[in-house]
This record gives sequence, structure tokens and C-alpha cells, in this order.
Amino acid sequence: MEMDELETQSGGQETGTSTADAHQHEHHQQVINRLARIEGHVRAVKKMVEADTPCPDVLVQIAAVRAALNGVGRVILEDHLQSCMVEAVEKDDYAQALRDLKNSLGKFIG
Amino acid sequence: MEMDELETQSGGQETGTSTADAHQHEHHQQVINRLARIEGHVRAVKKMVEADTPCPDVLVQIAAVRAALNGVGRVILEDHLQSCMVEAVEKDDYAQALRDLKNSLGKFIG
Repeated sequence: MEMDELETQSGGQETGTSTADAHQHEHHQQVINRLARIEGHVRAVKKMVEADTPCPDVLVQIAAVRAALNGVGRVILEDHLQSCMVEAVEKDDYAQALRDLKNSLGKFIG
Repeated sequence: MEMDELETQSGGQETGTSTADAHQHEHHQQVINRLARIEGHVRAVKKMVEADTPCPDVLVQIAAVRAALNGVGRVILEDHLQSCMVEAVEKDDYAQALRDLKNSLGKFIG
């Protein structure tokens, strides 16, 4: 039930500010693989909590998941700069792409 | 296969510095529920990437997962302070508990 909510909440295509990316990203499959690993890592952390693993050990694993998320975010950003932005500039249509990027950079970096 | 690796890697009980927590934490079930939601959220982000959702939208969702991780980390830390640490102090056996906590705080906060 909660999962359904999340699917809807995080699907985001409907509320997104941009249209779907038609072009390829260099690390597309690597990003998917990393996210699959992060998903498994979060599941493992949940099992640690269920098994009453000591809090300090759980916190260290949560920090590791966060570091992995930052890593995959950086790869997505680099791919984005290489493909989406370069393409937008070449088409002389980069104003909106740049606005989107600045906006999401602000949310990603904080 | 990758999932198996992660289970082993993040199970961590064997390599952990502390023994299993016998006492209850106030938000034990809430922490498990939050981690289940985060797991579903990461899965949803993976689907976004598979569906070529624009990079800025993906980055915003990754930041949301990271914020949720920080939130659950804070709850675990607060529970830890309330139960594990108070108990350790009462037993006059807090030196190791404090060392573990400082160590994992350093890794969690950075």
C-alpha cells in the first residue's frame, strides 16, 4: 500500500518540468545497476534494524547508502552535462534546460 | 548475485563493534516502515531512469531519498540516545558505548 503511494509520488513524469529524454546517456545502464544495488542495500539496512543490530552499525550503513546516492547523483549530473546540456546548446535552445538544471542542482546540493 | 553481496556486506553483525541491542527502541517499527518506504522510493527512481525521465527530475528525487535517509538516521540516533546510552550510563558502563557512538556520529555526519 505504502509502495503504491511512493510509485505515484516519485514517478514524477506528470509533474516534471521537462519532457522525456530521448537521447542516450553514457552511463545509463551503470546508473540503473547502482540504483538496484542501493535498493538492495536499503533492504539490508531494514533487516539489520529488524534484527536489532546496534544503532552505531546501522548509522554507518545509512551513511554508506547516502554516499552511494551522492555517487549515483554525480554520475547522472555528469551524463546530463555531457548529453542534455551540450545538445541544448547546439540547438541554441538552452535557456529552459539551464533553468531546470540550476533548479535541480539547488535541490540536489542544497 | 549483486543483492547477495550486499546482504553479506551490509549485514555487518559479524564485523560490528557492538553486540546486538537487546532493549527496545521507541520508534523501532517506525524506523522499519520508513526504511521500507525509502526502499520503494529508490526502486521508483530506478524506474524513472529506465523510462528516460529527465535528469533534473531524477536528481530531485535522489535528493528526496537522501533527505529521507537523514530523517530516519536522526530518529535512530535519538532512540539510541534515549535507550542505549541512558542504559549504558545507568550501568556505569558507558565508555565503550560512547566511543562507538562518537565513531559512528563521525561517519554519519561526516
